Amino acid sequence: MIIIGEKINGSIPSVAKAIAEKNAEHIKKLAVAQTEAGANFIDCCASVDNDVEVETLKWLIELIQEATDVPIAIDSPNADALAAVMPFVKKEGLVNSVSGEGNKIDLIFPAIANTNWEVVALLCDDTGISKTAEKRLEVFADIMARAKEFNIDPSRIHIDPMVEMLCTSDDGINMIIDVMKQIKAEYPTIHITGAASNISFNLPVRKIVNMAFVVLSMAAGLDSAILDPLNQDMMGMIFATEALLGLDEMCIEYITAYREGIFGQKK
Amino acid sequence: MIIIGEKINGSIPSVAKAIAEKNAEHIKKLAVAQTEAGANFIDCCASVDNDVEVETLKWLIELIQEATDVPIAIDSPNADALAAVMPFVKKEGLVNSVSGEGNKIDLIFPAIANTNWEVVALLCDDTGISKTAEKRLEVFADIMARAKEFNIDPSRIHIDPMVEMLCTSDDGINMIIDVMKQIKAEYPTIHITGAASNISFNLPVRKIVNMAFVVLSMAAGLDSAILDPLNQDMMGMIFATEALLGLDEMCIEYITAYREGIFGQKK
Repeated sequence: MIIIGEKINGSIPSVAKAIAEKNAEHIKKLAVAQTEAGANFIDCCASVDNDVEVETLKWLIELIQEATDVPIAIDSPNADALAAVMPFVKKEGLVNSVSGEGNKIDLIFPAIANTNWEVVALLCDDTGISKTAEKRLEVFADIMARAKEFNIDPSRIHIDPMVEMLCTSDDGINMIIDVMKQIKAEYPTIHITGAASNISFNLPVRKIVNMAFVVLSMAAGLDSAILDPLNQDMMGMIFATEALLGLDEMCIEYITAYREGIFGQKK
Repeated sequence: MIIIGEKINGSIPSVAKAIAEKNAEHIKKLAVAQTEAGANFIDCCASVDNDVEVETLKWLIELIQEATDVPIAIDSPNADALAAVMPFVKKEGLVNSVSGEGNKIDLIFPAIANTNWEVVALLCDDTGISKTAEKRLEVFADIMARAKEFNIDPSRIHIDPMVEMLCTSDDGINMIIDVMKQIKAEYPTIHITGAASNISFNLPVRKIVNMAFVVLSMAAGLDSAILDPLNQDMMGMIFATEALLGLDEMCIEYITAYREGIFGQKK
């Protein structure tokens, strides 16, 4: 499982405060904590006004790079900002994200064409987020055609099928599970990702819904997720599910992660 | 999901003590607590020497019936004891269990033939517990042939595919998931059950493995489980999974269970 640590995000009030106050230590501490918890990428999202986004991202990137060697996931809905900050990232990381919307792919795919950068691609386009598996798979096919054009191997792509909140669904997650399975069947080396907590909006005890969602999705091919690696219950659930799915012989990784304090420790 | 509350079992030291000391209040309290937590059956297992098993079961059954209207799952490896205590159970419940071993079916199936009693059937026989799906499905076919002979509808049968500990498996739970899916495909109204905690023997933080196991198994057809209904994390995970699987429109049951204190409350 590829863990994209979500804690450095300006939409989180304490991070917004650290950005406003130029509190470098707070940002570095979040980078180190997520590294120690086993994050494979450190997500870096400014959530500030457009005119200061690039400079804010650059400041965050520099701090993260001082604090850890874990690669960065540069995160913005603004593809221009993503392209602008890419040169300041020392170790090839993850671009979060493109989609079928506007000129995102035109801006990002050429920039990562002859690199080892990976990319998150959302299954939505200028018509929005479709309610049907068919339409999402059409968006997927378009994205993959463009990726082929730029010689971007499926193993560098993390598809986010766009999980929506469960409380307004009349069919649970069956549609999205179907999308995941079809994508993984077609491209076995592709990654399937998602923001684990979107599913539980407006529900009580959200963490339980998030965990059950990740477990069910892992069985359908989810092998990457944007989440809080300091959430020990979630991390334990992920290691347990890998073992249950037969991806961890004799539970060696589960037991090792427990011994390393990734989960099951007093908080 | 059918919850078979496991807390009245003489293999639990505090229950063994209550049985030895004839502490009726302790037993009744466990029956009430499990009822309030949403148990659909109250399991009743004496775990005492053979010569006192029937009298002990009768004592337990009487106490449970005084405390709650929830039907009882009479639980013993000894089919003679099960048959002997059935007449003392007022409300038709669940016989836990039969299997392909010895004369268990010969004793139990005629006794429940023209009743509404349900029965747990384990997929093992006199050769033991097979390592292959094929052999377990053979045992299943034999059990279903006998059930047909006695006109026991599949909807009255809870098949326990016999979950074994994960730590010595080299393929996770893939085989048992396959068995569950095949059984459910052949008999859509049958129940699939299991003791949720067997999976995690010898592993740290067992509750996490148990929960992930139940979630994955529910996606494969598990709709009945022998577990502790006072385990709020597990109960929440079950309600969340039902909603995710599309079995709880608009999450009404999830939200209701939360409001009723089944999960998500301070412990």
